[in-house]
Amino acid sequence: MIQNKDVFPFSAIIGQENMKKALILNILNPTIGGVLIRGEKGTAKSTTVRALAQLLPNRSVIDGCRCNCSAENSQLLCPECKALNYDQNNAPMKQQAMEVVELPLNATEDRVAGTIDIEHALSQGKQRFEPGILARAHGNILYVDEVNLLEDHVVDMLLDAAAMGVNYVEREGISFSHASRFVLVGTMNPEEGDIRPQLLDRFGIVVDVTAEEDIERRMTIVSRRIAFDSDCQTFCEKWKEQNNQLRESIHTSKQKLRTVDIGQDLVKLTAEICIETGVDGHRADITIIKTACALAALNNCHEVCREHILEAAAFALPHRTRRKPFEESSFSKSFLEKWQQ
Amino acid sequence: MIQNKDVFPFSAIIGQENMKKALILNILNPTIGGVLIRGEKGTAKSTTVRALAQLLPNRSVIDGCRCNCSAENSQLLCPECKALNYDQNNAPMKQQAMEVVELPLNATEDRVAGTIDIEHALSQGKQRFEPGILARAHGNILYVDEVNLLEDHVVDMLLDAAAMGVNYVEREGISFSHASRFVLVGTMNPEEGDIRPQLLDRFGIVVDVTAEEDIERRMTIVSRRIAFDSDCQTFCEKWKEQNNQLRESIHTSKQKLRTVDIGQDLVKLTAEICIETGVDGHRADITIIKTACALAALNNCHEVCREHILEAAAFALPHRTRRKPFEESSFSKSFLEKWQQ
Amino acid sequence: MIQNKDVFPFSAIIGQENMKKALILNILNPTIGGVLIRGEKGTAKSTTVRALAQLLPNRSVIDGCRCNCSAENSQLLCPECKALNYDQNNAPMKQQAMEVVELPLNATEDRVAGTIDIEHALSQGKQRFEPGILARAHGNILYVDEVNLLEDHVVDMLLDAAAMGVNYVEREGISFSHASRFVLVGTMNPEEGDIRPQLLDRFGIVVDVTAEEDIERRMTIVSRRIAFDSDCQTFCEKWKEQNNQLRESIHTSKQKLRTVDIGQDLVKLTAEICIETGVDGHRADITIIKTACALAALNNCHEVCREHILEAAAFALPHRTRRKPFEESSFSKSFLEKWQQ
Amino acid sequence: MIQNKDVFPFSAIIGQENMKKALILNILNPTIGGVLIRGEKGTAKSTTVRALAQLLPNRSVIDGCRCNCSAENSQLLCPECKALNYDQNNAPMKQQAMEVVELPLNATEDRVAGTIDIEHALSQGKQRFEPGILARAHGNILYVDEVNLLEDHVVDMLLDAAAMGVNYVEREGISFSHASRFVLVGTMNPEEGDIRPQLLDRFGIVVDVTAEEDIERRMTIVSRRIAFDSDCQTFCEKWKEQNNQLRESIHTSKQKLRTVDIGQDLVKLTAEICIETGVDGHRADITIIKTACALAALNNCHEVCREHILEAAAFALPHRTRRKPFEESSFSKSFLEKWQQ
Amino acid sequence: MIQNKDVFPFSAIIGQENMKKALILNILNPTIGGVLIRGEKGTAKSTTVRALAQLLPNRSVIDGCRCNCSAENSQLLCPECKALNYDQNNAPMKQQAMEVVELPLNATEDRVAGTIDIEHALSQGKQRFEPGILARAHGNILYVDEVNLLEDHVVDMLLDAAAMGVNYVEREGISFSHASRFVLVGTMNPEEGDIRPQLLDRFGIVVDVTAEEDIERRMTIVSRRIAFDSDCQTFCEKWKEQNNQLRESIHTSKQKLRTVDIGQDLVKLTAEICIETGVDGHRADITIIKTACALAALNNCHEVCREHILEAAAFALPHRTRRKPFEESSFSKSFLEKWQQ
Amino acid sequence: MIQNKDVFPFSAIIGQENMKKALILNILNPTIGGVLIRGEKGTAKSTTVRALAQLLPNRSVIDGCRCNCSAENSQLLCPECKALNYDQNNAPMKQQAMEVVELPLNATEDRVAGTIDIEHALSQGKQRFEPGILARAHGNILYVDEVNLLEDHVVDMLLDAAAMGVNYVEREGISFSHASRFVLVGTMNPEEGDIRPQLLDRFGIVVDVTAEEDIERRMTIVSRRIAFDSDCQTFCEKWKEQNNQLRESIHTSKQKLRTVDIGQDLVKLTAEICIETGVDGHRADITIIKTACALAALNNCHEVCREHILEAAAFALPHRTRRKPFEESSFSKSFLEKWQQ
Repeated sequence: MIQNKDVFPFSAIIGQENMKKALILNILNPTIGGVLIRGEKGTAKSTTVRALAQLLPNRSVIDGCRCNCSAENSQLLCPECKALNYDQNNAPMKQQAMEVVELPLNATEDRVAGTIDIEHALSQGKQRFEPGILARAHGNILYVDEVNLLEDHVVDMLLDAAAMGVNYVEREGISFSHASRFVLVGTMNPEEGDIRPQLLDRFGIVVDVTAEEDIERRMTIVSRRIAFDSDCQTFCEKWKEQNNQLRESIHTSKQKLRTVDIGQDLVKLTAEICIETGVDGHRADITIIKTACALAALNNCHEVCREHILEAAAFALPHRTRRKPFEESSFSKSFLEKWQQ
Repeated sequence: MIQNKDVFPFSAIIGQENMKKALILNILNPTIGGVLIRGEKGTAKSTTVRALAQLLPNRSVIDGCRCNCSAENSQLLCPECKALNYDQNNAPMKQQAMEVVELPLNATEDRVAGTIDIEHALSQGKQRFEPGILARAHGNILYVDEVNLLEDHVVDMLLDAAAMGVNYVEREGISFSHASRFVLVGTMNPEEGDIRPQLLDRFGIVVDVTAEEDIERRMTIVSRRIAFDSDCQTFCEKWKEQNNQLRESIHTSKQKLRTVDIGQDLVKLTAEICIETGVDGHRADITIIKTACALAALNNCHEVCREHILEAAAFALPHRTRRKPFEESSFSKSFLEKWQQ
Repeated sequence: MIQNKDVFPFSAIIGQENMKKALILNILNPTIGGVLIRGEKGTAKSTTVRALAQLLPNRSVIDGCRCNCSAENSQLLCPECKALNYDQNNAPMKQQAMEVVELPLNATEDRVAGTIDIEHALSQGKQRFEPGILARAHGNILYVDEVNLLEDHVVDMLLDAAAMGVNYVEREGISFSHASRFVLVGTMNPEEGDIRPQLLDRFGIVVDVTAEEDIERRMTIVSRRIAFDSDCQTFCEKWKEQNNQLRESIHTSKQKLRTVDIGQDLVKLTAEICIETGVDGHRADITIIKTACALAALNNCHEVCREHILEAAAFALPHRTRRKPFEESSFSKSFLEKWQQ
Repeated sequence: MIQNKDVFPFSAIIGQENMKKALILNILNPTIGGVLIRGEKGTAKSTTVRALAQLLPNRSVIDGCRCNCSAENSQLLCPECKALNYDQNNAPMKQQAMEVVELPLNATEDRVAGTIDIEHALSQGKQRFEPGILARAHGNILYVDEVNLLEDHVVDMLLDAAAMGVNYVEREGISFSHASRFVLVGTMNPEEGDIRPQLLDRFGIVVDVTAEEDIERRMTIVSRRIAFDSDCQTFCEKWKEQNNQLRESIHTSKQKLRTVDIGQDLVKLTAEICIETGVDGHRADITIIKTACALAALNNCHEVCREHILEAAAFALPHRTRRKPFEESSFSKSFLEKWQQ
Repeated sequence: MIQNKDVFPFSAIIGQENMKKALILNILNPTIGGVLIRGEKGTAKSTTVRALAQLLPNRSVIDGCRCNCSAENSQLLCPECKALNYDQNNAPMKQQAMEVVELPLNATEDRVAGTIDIEHALSQGKQRFEPGILARAHGNILYVDEVNLLEDHVVDMLLDAAAMGVNYVEREGISFSHASRFVLVGTMNPEEGDIRPQLLDRFGIVVDVTAEEDIERRMTIVSRRIAFDSDCQTFCEKWKEQNNQLRESIHTSKQKLRTVDIGQDLVKLTAEICIETGVDGHRADITIIKTACALAALNNCHEVCREHILEAAAFALPHRTRRKPFEESSFSKSFLEKWQQ
Repeated sequence: MIQNKDVFPFSAIIGQENMKKALILNILNPTIGGVLIRGEKGTAKSTTVRALAQLLPNRSVIDGCRCNCSAENSQLLCPECKALNYDQNNAPMKQQAMEVVELPLNATEDRVAGTIDIEHALSQGKQRFEPGILARAHGNILYVDEVNLLEDHVVDMLLDAAAMGVNYVEREGISFSHASRFVLVGTMNPEEGDIRPQLLDRFGIVVDVTAEEDIERRMTIVSRRIAFDSDCQTFCEKWKEQNNQLRESIHTSKQKLRTVDIGQDLVKLTAEICIETGVDGHRADITIIKTACALAALNNCHEVCREHILEAAAFALPHRTRRKPFEESSFSKSFLEKWQQ
């Protein structure tokens, strides 16, 4: 779905390092909880997320399942997999690359949640579930452009699915359910309206992007874009090798992450930062530690160090602080300086 | 339904003693009327309620009934049980664990109240009731996350069912009804909006929760969560025994409750407290006495004592007082000190 | 319908004498026009109205009629009775106890007014009217809990039926009508919102209730409720005899009412009170006189006396006065003192 | 339809002479344009209009027509009469009493305009128009109680029918039309909201009513009402003769009206009054002259006199004046004194 | 359609010369763009427009076409004419009088645009277009009474049809189109609300009307109306000859218009007036010149003279000026005096 | 579709050079991103866009495809082309002139996005996609008159299609998609309301138009319009040759554009201008360079020169600047003077 428009190569994107890193961290550990990218229009936010599709690793799904079921938990299988009595031992598995699944702003409730396949009903005399975006997004990245403009009823569907990890569908007296766990990625221009607090809270980390002010870099951005627009095939061919290298290095880091350690002193540091920042609850602590581990893996370290914690805090805290008002909703990184050593 | 996401073990939840106790009291005596849990986000409110499912006792239902009918009152049977002419003597009974039934925010009216089973109608030529959440909730715990965000028309359905103990459904000119008595449990973040007064009034007791401020405990919370997220099966296995012990002790307390006594002096004390607090009507009195009895049973006492009354009052009064405004909607427990001896 | 929840015995209700008397007066003379009960929550308003069902007398209806038709006026028969050509001479009559029919807040238009019986249409090839709450309420008491929260379109249906005494239904190009005259009883908590003036105007009399402040009585209220909640069957058995005596005495008073007289001096007194109070129109006069007659019958008097008029005025005037503002919408009974002798 | 509730005898209504006269004037000349009755609740407004049905004269309609067609204009026949090729010569005519047709506030669009008769379509295989209230109202009195509370979309239907004298119906791709000319009678309590100016403008004349303040008359009003409520048949029997005499006298006046003359000096006086009053357009002039002629007929005069003009002006001007604000929307009759001689 | 109510003779209308002239100018040249008549109620606005039907000339349409197709442009034929392969050479033409087609305020979207003929579909097994008001209005006068009260979605349909000259209909997956060019005539009472600017802009010219203040003329107006109301047939007969003469003279002027000339000096004068008035764009210029030519034809002149331009400007400018605010939205004709010679 | 009304010849349009040039630039390079034309009413905005149809070049589409598919990318074929297994080698191609496809304001969602062809489903027993405006617009110009008045839900559909280059349709449980890339052209009168920022952002360039103030030119405009209105065929014939020459010259410039060069100094100048102007992101840079190249081609230059950049900036910047407020939303061209040499 993401290849509708010819996709700009991820490696050819200049600058915006934080945005690119935030996306890659979520590939390394999807339980970080997704990323919200905020910034003015024309800063390659959508381009970058769509380009991410080129870097995604494979994962294991049941072959033939239309809801991307994995076989780990037999209680969470979709109706069709349940009807086939699949479990961890007998389900036919296949490897399949993760996708970036896009949720358009005007998606109907049917398209998001899925609905009844009428044609099948008419021809086969039996109603069948027609999976929606929440089924396609399972195990994948769910991308919402201009997420702050999403209609409330669709936001509610996202929140319910995100809270329960399951998508329930009721249509014309028939019920279906299937697992729906995804990395939620959203982009938004803060000038065009706020995002609902409950939805904001669902994003693990946040990055803010701005237009490039350096003239040389800006000229490069513009030249690459015009080159891409005038002959995208040649352009993509040119960047193919770099994309492949990057995907390979992400794969290596993901393996590395399994063995990354973190000391109790850094867990304590994280708690101190969160208490002092005055965030609600304990989600910030958990996200910082997961993000720091992923940063360590990305840097090829065996152990999390203090800098990883502080960098992770800069990703995880901006949208969770509220007691001390900052200008322009941007978290002041200077706040973290006191913990620098 | 509650096992969609792998469930965190109830015993592994640190702190939040009042919230846990409030839930257990409602298992001991469901006529206490449910509990509303208020607190900032990220304080394990939903985690705790969902974990409660691990502790629930068995109860007796008619085998094969899709509406959880018990056979006590033949006037309250669902249409299918009525059609089978079931009564206390001939109904096939089975033991079944109570459940935590979740009401998602975007549940449609059909899903909450039930509707007509179209597929059955098409294949069998006869319309049949398809039970909804209010049927599944009968005799169980009905859980609403972010209950203050529930849409008004669903709140109305809850209020009607709660007021009459029966769910009436009218669909396409066909009427059905079945008993629907449940323990209503809601969680909410007060910052995200108020709860309608009529709905607030339906909750027997209330607890307020806050994030853990003690660093050591906070570190433990975070560590346990990360351990659970990275390998939930091993983690759950580790806490299984403690969960079993807790369920057993709840079962014992529930038996104990039948023999707990209360003296007239404490009934009078309750009335005095309620009159002085200025609550509306007499529901607060009734709830305090029921809660105090459950507290006595939980503490393995044969008789309610003054401390049980005061602890129960702290659960039952916060959302019922209005004449003296308190800060942040929290009931000042110091108010009860004058009755301490 | 009212026996869904086990019903508390009317005789076991302590205090709230005015509320209980207002309900009984309407049994004696249904043309008094119903009663609106106003008061804070938890004051047994709903309990009392539902308990009223235990005291209701019999009345004469056509056997087999689904719309509670009586045969007095052949123009007002339901379509089915008309099709059978029933009239005062040939209709099969039976005696049947009056009911308390409850109108739930979330009742659909179809459920209130009635609709087409689809199943009958499918199986019999002919459309048939499926009576709604307004049919069931004919000749009965129609009870609306939290009547001030009723949706406007349902209020409109009530107002139309109350104004014309007939319920008209139009569904899918088919028209039905049947008589619908009922005693309207509503309860409301004034803190939860006002009642529409047109609906307020439909209630003949009004009572205001408050929580019991006397400690001993309050303890009794609470003890009886807890006893009822823990074993309702034993509790109801205990009060059965007292309920029977009360029903018998109501029957006697209803016979008595036919012979109660009123002197012209008291009709004049009524007009004076109403003119001085500044009520609109002449409905207050009429209601006071009818209520006074019923009070006389209840007190076993052959003739209305001045005290009956003044007591009736206290029931009929509070919601009809407007020129002199009172605090808290409660009619000041001291106003009536000048007519005391 | 108006006989749903037993109807109070017109002759037994005490006072409210202007209201009664305004209604009778419209029987004498229906092109006066109807009457709007304004006043507080409980002043027998609805009772009076409904009682009017007892006095209405006969008129000529096509026998068997469900739309009350007359045969005067073959272009205005309903589809069924057209299909029968009826005209002034061949249509079977019958005499039928005018009716008071009531438009309830919650009437659906289908019920007002008419719709397709589904049952006929199913059984006969052909769609047929099912006439609505606007068909029944043709040639009759259309009565709207609480006309100021009528929903906007129904008001629009009334305005269109009133403007064109025809009711057009479009349902599911089928069109029908029939003549719909009626005398519009509305009652309203000004305290419950204003009436839309366009609808107000459709009423030819207006009367304001208030409660009776005279004690003796008030006692009579109340006594007659209670007598009616306790035994309506006996009561109606008692007033039957007086009602018959009144209907007869109206019939006589209606004949008389055809020969009433008016002098040019009085037409000029009317124009002077209207110009000085500052009413819009020329409708006031026309209505005053028609009303004055009817008043003359009612008083058995051959010619309109100055007093008739002034009395007619008091009926026709109150809702048409706007340049000089009056208190309480009531037209000051003293304004007319200057033309008294 | 316009003859529903008996129509008052155009010739019998007294005064309101500008309104009558504006209507006639649009008959002479329909591309002038219609007329908006503004004025208080009761000033014979609707009466005059409806009476216009008596004066309309014939035009050429395809015989049997239900969409009033002419054969000039084969691309603009309706689906049925296209299916018959009609063109300028083979289409069967007939002469037919122009009509005044009325658009009622409560017209549904289906009635305005047309819809699918269900009965035809059922009986013939094929869906067919059922033309709506926009089809009937093609080549005719489309009249909207109270045009400022028209619902927005109908206004949108009018604007789209007026902008493109074509009516597109989409119903249930089927598309139809037909030409829809009409003279738009609207009446409105400015006190009852404004007209949307986009719709105002669609009217070529505007006239403002007021009630007659001259007593003698007013008496005549009233007398003629009462005479018409009491016996319309006799009244119409009396004015028949004058109506015929007027229709004939309009026919002559319409022929004359083809040969009317205008000098470049007057085109320049028009541009000067429009620039000085500060109107938007060039539509005012075009309308003034067309209107001036029609005025010349009406006055039987071969050439437009300066007075014609100034009179036309007084018709075309009032609703197009905005830079200099005038009182009461009325264009000050004194503004044009400077160009008088 | 655009030939509904007889179309005014593009060559006969006087003045408005910027508007005409902006349209032609988008023909030369459709990735410039469309044009928004802002100006008061009556300035030939719609006339000019519709006239553009006469100048459009041919393009290559699959013969028989109802969605205007090209065969370049087999992933983007419509369902019917996919079903035929078309690819770059086997698809039957034809040359076809680009069109101006108009999106009317009241277009339904079905008409814009397409829907299910019911008639085909009924007759063939198989559901088929019925393409909508977004399919017709693919590879063409999509024109929205009064684009600022477009309803929000249609705007959302445009934004989604523009963002993804694909139109997704879900109807009754069936999904379709097809490519939808178009040049978006909108006209608006800023006095009638703002345009949503997200939609404004989709337009590559902007032009502001005003009425002609020069009297001679104005006279010519008016004269040509009246000549066209009175005999459009003769008028169009007269301008045919000039139109043909213009179309030919556009074809030549489009060939030329492929070889136009731009120096890095001018890319840098563009970046400097954009940074100083304070536009968001980098879209302005890209648009300016593309527009400058097209201007060079139009002027028959081999290389972009500084004047082309400045002229292009005047097209691309007005709707993208926000930090320095200008009067009347118009970009001050004097801002660019500093870069003049």
